[in-house]
Amino acid sequence: MASAATAKALASNPTDVTRQLASYVVNSKWDDIPKDARYEAVRSIFNWVGCCLGGARHVTTDRAIAALAEFSGNAEASVLGRSERLDIMHAALLNGITSHVLDYDDTYLETIIHPAGPVASAILALGERQNVSGEDFMHAFILGVEVECRIGKAVYPSHYERGFHITGTAGVFGGAAAAGKLLGLNEQQMVWALGIAATQSAGLKEMFGTMCKPFHVGSAGQNGLKAALLASKDFTSSDGALEAKEGFAFTYSDEQDFSQITDNLGGSFEVTRNTYKPFACGIVTHPIIDGCIQLRDENNLTSDQIAEVSLRVNPLVIKLTGKKTPRTGLEAKFSIYHASSASIIRGSAGPNEFTDAVVRDAEVVELRDKVVAQIDESVSEEEAFVSITLHDGTVLNKHVEHAIGSFERPMTTESLEKKFKDQALSPLPADQIDRVMAMCWDVESLDDITEIARASVSA
Amino acid sequence: MASAATAKALASNPTDVTRQLASYVVNSKWDDIPKDARYEAVRSIFNWVGCCLGGARHVTTDRAIAALAEFSGNAEASVLGRSERLDIMHAALLNGITSHVLDYDDTYLETIIHPAGPVASAILALGERQNVSGEDFMHAFILGVEVECRIGKAVYPSHYERGFHITGTAGVFGGAAAAGKLLGLNEQQMVWALGIAATQSAGLKEMFGTMCKPFHVGSAGQNGLKAALLASKDFTSSDGALEAKEGFAFTYSDEQDFSQITDNLGGSFEVTRNTYKPFACGIVTHPIIDGCIQLRDENNLTSDQIAEVSLRVNPLVIKLTGKKTPRTGLEAKFSIYHASSASIIRGSAGPNEFTDAVVRDAEVVELRDKVVAQIDESVSEEEAFVSITLHDGTVLNKHVEHAIGSFERPMTTESLEKKFKDQALSPLPADQIDRVMAMCWDVESLDDITEIARASVSA
Repeated sequence: MASAATAKALASNPTDVTRQLASYVVNSKWDDIPKDARYEAVRSIFNWVGCCLGGARHVTTDRAIAALAEFSGNAEASVLGRSERLDIMHAALLNGITSHVLDYDDTYLETIIHPAGPVASAILALGERQNVSGEDFMHAFILGVEVECRIGKAVYPSHYERGFHITGTAGVFGGAAAAGKLLGLNEQQMVWALGIAATQSAGLKEMFGTMCKPFHVGSAGQNGLKAALLASKDFTSSDGALEAKEGFAFTYSDEQDFSQITDNLGGSFEVTRNTYKPFACGIVTHPIIDGCIQLRDENNLTSDQIAEVSLRVNPLVIKLTGKKTPRTGLEAKFSIYHASSASIIRGSAGPNEFTDAVVRDAEVVELRDKVVAQIDESVSEEEAFVSITLHDGTVLNKHVEHAIGSFERPMTTESLEKKFKDQALSPLPADQIDRVMAMCWDVESLDDITEIARASVSA
Repeated sequence: MASAATAKALASNPTDVTRQLASYVVNSKWDDIPKDARYEAVRSIFNWVGCCLGGARHVTTDRAIAALAEFSGNAEASVLGRSERLDIMHAALLNGITSHVLDYDDTYLETIIHPAGPVASAILALGERQNVSGEDFMHAFILGVEVECRIGKAVYPSHYERGFHITGTAGVFGGAAAAGKLLGLNEQQMVWALGIAATQSAGLKEMFGTMCKPFHVGSAGQNGLKAALLASKDFTSSDGALEAKEGFAFTYSDEQDFSQITDNLGGSFEVTRNTYKPFACGIVTHPIIDGCIQLRDENNLTSDQIAEVSLRVNPLVIKLTGKKTPRTGLEAKFSIYHASSASIIRGSAGPNEFTDAVVRDAEVVELRDKVVAQIDESVSEEEAFVSITLHDGTVLNKHVEHAIGSFERPMTTESLEKKFKDQALSPLPADQIDRVMAMCWDVESLDDITEIARASVSA
């Protein structure tokens, strides 16, 4: 029996973490995946396709295509919501960008990872190349999400606090694992794929509010795919990329908990805790927006009635979304002031509330300047207090414990479908939208995942 | 006049570092570049081309091409020493890999950055696409090296000690700056290019001894080029990627000295301190190898005479090259034990001393097991003490203060040419080698840098 001292030494000097994870991914069978994981995976994929369509016409997407499409190889894969076809590496990059550019995708709240983007972008492109069944696609997707979320948990929050955008840095592992599963890597190759992913891990939080934020998600998908392809040709990396002294966890984070990676592998599924955004902006603003919209609707508020909007929030909210005077729609997604103002005036906080035009709108700017935010350590990251004072002295209060879209108050099928349709309307005609939505709900029984990709492109 | 307190606040909370650097690169004129910088840039480029040729047939290169060449776009650029032509992104990746795979390239010792790889790989590929003069190529090269070395110095050694492979992490900035110069970016676009580079910065020291080490150099070139191309289409990033609180320097390092980036910009040139490796392995082993070869040659030593080889070295030597029983040629480049044994037995430490076969050679293994290394804090990183005890009791001692190839004992033109020829012989016929060498020495007066690229490919 190991002594306490030995156990402690093992914990602080772990071995085989990368290999255990690789072995799990390689040996997992579809029949091992429980129903609740399949259910949430379908919702995740459905939501991801909708977000790709919603971001397809964004100027960020246009510029990425203008800069890079001419370097594409064989046009084997689709960019959802667009007419361009690109090689699978560029398609992975672009679908990752579009899925995240509106900050409207999904959230695994324990680490603030947006799980679908890096994984689905990598394997939809690969799936188009090698004709993958819906079942195999789902299986790879679930494993990729498992890998990125577990690795994220092993270094969160220290890693995130250092300044790393965890959807980029952890996402690349998810893309590599999922693509590696579809490529049929053996255990050693999967170890190498995770290593090649580790050594490409990147993305700075400083980029929030710029075009680089969605670029992180696309790059994670593209580089994860690249890692798996290289490993499939026996391109070697370290055997201990996650746990080694100069590996990912120790280099990219000041604290590590490797048990988050290895404990109960196959016994629980992180995808079951995925959630979908009802508002197109940083997740930490959602309780505030929820409160603002509730007060507006309950009291038929108009902005000219309002003297002050007072927010009481967790410190993280101001840290991540404290921009007082955003200049662009992308910046506004990280402004609790803009989010409060726009959602009170317009009654929603979808992509249309975060355009450059709305950011400059005089009424929105005027009310934004009346928003004050107060930090309160006792308020959790998931809750918020909103207090609106009217010119007549009335004070309206709302306490939101969990915003809509959270794990506790999940998006319904109906609300997911409305969100999908609203986003898809710009690139696709209505009958095509219905067809794509039906395919997404039915993804598990598709003979070839290519069907979804082909059905989602614009004429 | 600013008070001391203000000055300190500015130092710890710097502003405009990224913009100052971008502005310098954008506004630099060829006439501003002094003679000594041009001289060393030519030697750097000459050495880089030779190393690309030397690594062209390595199995690492073969596997990268096997995995990725089929995703290449238009074949606009050369892979030196090979017959494949690829799009510029893949050519940048491949030439970066080949230039570093033998660990035989160049070293900027203050940060252990290998400067040429990320920069030259990016701009030779771009140069083939847009027909760049030798002068413009040299200018962009010198600026790229300036950027990567200054950024490296701002975070070294803390950044390196965390586990980051600085040629990858800082190299991407050099690739971006150099490519951005050739693309004619304006100041704002150059700021964005540096930001897009920052948010792709990657490479783990854990990968030393595997195929990922040269992959870091190739990726830095490829991703730097990508950053510049994106910025040229106004793809936005942060304005303070280097100095912001969640930017590169604070996220990737525990200590920062921004004056290394901004002081005396244009007044000094980092490229003038570049050096070229006479031995194909980790730079910290070079004093030991130099000492071993000197003792061997002075005493006509054979391995059967030797009872023990005792080394006294700086701690960093063991940290970086302490592998006792390397299994492959790539691993052996990080084994001071193998390096000592092979160089004593074979009288040199070129690429041929670091093959898988030599690593397994019985005589080399036997002598390797007689090598003992002792750490001594008082020994500098650049020096080493070698002591060889013979079976007859004789003790031979050598103290190397600076190895050949160091800044203090630079490679001569003759030795650089011999190194080039030895490497080029595998992919190219002798008359072609002479032609390429002549072009490299004459790079400054070439009308089109494409000439070097086209002349360096294998039939």
